[in-house]
Amino acid sequence: MRQPATIGIDLGGTNVRAGAVTSSGQLLSYSETPIIAADGPEIGLKRITRLIEQISAEADVQIQAVGVGCTGPLDRAAGTINNPYTLPTWENVNINQALKDHFSVPVSLENDADAAALGESWLGAGRGLSRVLMVTVGTGVGTGFILDGKIYRGLAGVHPEGGHIPIDPSGPQCYCGARGCLESLASGSGIAAIAQNRVLHTPSLLMEKADQNPELISAEMVIAAAQAGDALAMEIVQQSATALALGLINLVHLYLPDCVVFSGGVMHSFALYEPRLKEMMKIHSVMSPLDQISLLLAQLGQKAGIYGAARAAMLDASID
Amino acid sequence: MRQPATIGIDLGGTNVRAGAVTSSGQLLSYSETPIIAADGPEIGLKRITRLIEQISAEADVQIQAVGVGCTGPLDRAAGTINNPYTLPTWENVNINQALKDHFSVPVSLENDADAAALGESWLGAGRGLSRVLMVTVGTGVGTGFILDGKIYRGLAGVHPEGGHIPIDPSGPQCYCGARGCLESLASGSGIAAIAQNRVLHTPSLLMEKADQNPELISAEMVIAAAQAGDALAMEIVQQSATALALGLINLVHLYLPDCVVFSGGVMHSFALYEPRLKEMMKIHSVMSPLDQISLLLAQLGQKAGIYGAARAAMLDASID
Repeated sequence: MRQPATIGIDLGGTNVRAGAVTSSGQLLSYSETPIIAADGPEIGLKRITRLIEQISAEADVQIQAVGVGCTGPLDRAAGTINNPYTLPTWENVNINQALKDHFSVPVSLENDADAAALGESWLGAGRGLSRVLMVTVGTGVGTGFILDGKIYRGLAGVHPEGGHIPIDPSGPQCYCGARGCLESLASGSGIAAIAQNRVLHTPSLLMEKADQNPELISAEMVIAAAQAGDALAMEIVQQSATALALGLINLVHLYLPDCVVFSGGVMHSFALYEPRLKEMMKIHSVMSPLDQISLLLAQLGQKAGIYGAARAAMLDASID
Repeated sequence: MRQPATIGIDLGGTNVRAGAVTSSGQLLSYSETPIIAADGPEIGLKRITRLIEQISAEADVQIQAVGVGCTGPLDRAAGTINNPYTLPTWENVNINQALKDHFSVPVSLENDADAAALGESWLGAGRGLSRVLMVTVGTGVGTGFILDGKIYRGLAGVHPEGGHIPIDPSGPQCYCGARGCLESLASGSGIAAIAQNRVLHTPSLLMEKADQNPELISAEMVIAAAQAGDALAMEIVQQSATALALGLINLVHLYLPDCVVFSGGVMHSFALYEPRLKEMMKIHSVMSPLDQISLLLAQLGQKAGIYGAARAAMLDASID
């Protein structure tokens, strides 16, 4: 007899990953393939259905539901992806309808930050806790908040954009409308932009690393130069750690989560950030026990989104 | 036959107010009396029990439960008030036990900001909405968030202190540990402190209003001077409106409430603040529909805390 399972999909700009997940959180099969979005949504959707068929056959799975995590903009209720920025040509693509038509099971669509947070809350670093805040610091800064095992949503079902809270009115202008939002000061692109500007006035190893072209300076270069002892890079990393801490204090003051789970490329260097984050959390613990909140690293890596997308579909379809 | 009702108590530093409230939100009787906390908790608790007996007799009420809203610090689970700052001599006073012993009904203790928010969400400005954020701007800044009709609490049942989110790292040092938290920049005491400093260097009507003694300048004086066209006072009010807007943007980005309900002494001049709040909400609406969030004034006045405290006790005791 075939084993019942829910398919979790993590659809990114480069690859689509899929896993067959049981209701107890066991990953029965897994695969990934390039999405090559520019081939158009019709071909892309076929790639996704074939990937699902492949992993289902491999583990002899009876599909109960499909959950898709994807970078926004998307419309959960309509089941449409509208993200020509990350997935060129994908405008108003009704992925829910396409997968429902093909597999005749319920389909759910989620923001990828929420899916990853739900995955880490269900099976990863936040397992067993009531309030799990996930903060992803990569090219941008994204947040997802899981309350009692469910994704927290605001008015009209909208997902909070915790990366764009304003934390320093003297900071740089962001596309979000704010000056000095968390993302503009602490994200990988924010760190790179600050460094590209600072090297024009301050000697640094970074110019050498970037072949004397400031525009080539990346967050990875800044972090590597800081680890090598470059004074300017160390200063920029410390400033971004302070900005991340200020954003974190805002987030934890309002959600008061049991833990914060960090992920994303910049957080691969969590050790550079952790002392400053902990120091600032302690300083700001007069009114609320912020220093009792655990600061954790994500545990599920790239599979968090698959587990979380599958879990979201299980919750929507009342699969236990 | 006596009518069943729940007693709601609003215990402040000066007065204690009590009302008998039905499960459908009807106020059957109401009264208040000075608490004179310095007489000691034993006498104070007797004043409260007598007040409850009085309003119960007046409306011929059968008491089902008692809910108390009080300024913190307090311990909800233990039922103790530990607030010698606002209620001199009241250290570790177990009000729940005292009222339970006297009335033989369940007793609940809540932070007063949460009680007021619950009252406004139940019967006031936020009636019928799923997510109601209340922001009280008086001597300090307090927040309460009501999610699906219940008070939102964080780790260990702690209530979020949204007045102490840091919004400007170049701002003044607050007792909460932060530099430039919302309260330090937008509260009545924050406005007064800024004005007391600014009048030393800038000519203003305020010096005359304060009999040439800067220390006597209050937020009320600043607002009155701004309304009279004083340039410095207008600038200070505009800056505090910008600070309130920055704090508000942080709050609404993370909670994404259906409405924000404003209360407190400074918000009696809401008209001075509203244009700046709306303008800033619009500017910051790129990522999330912040401009769709209603900005409302509280409707229940001083009774919000009574209704909310009663409602909290009803929820705890499963009274419908």
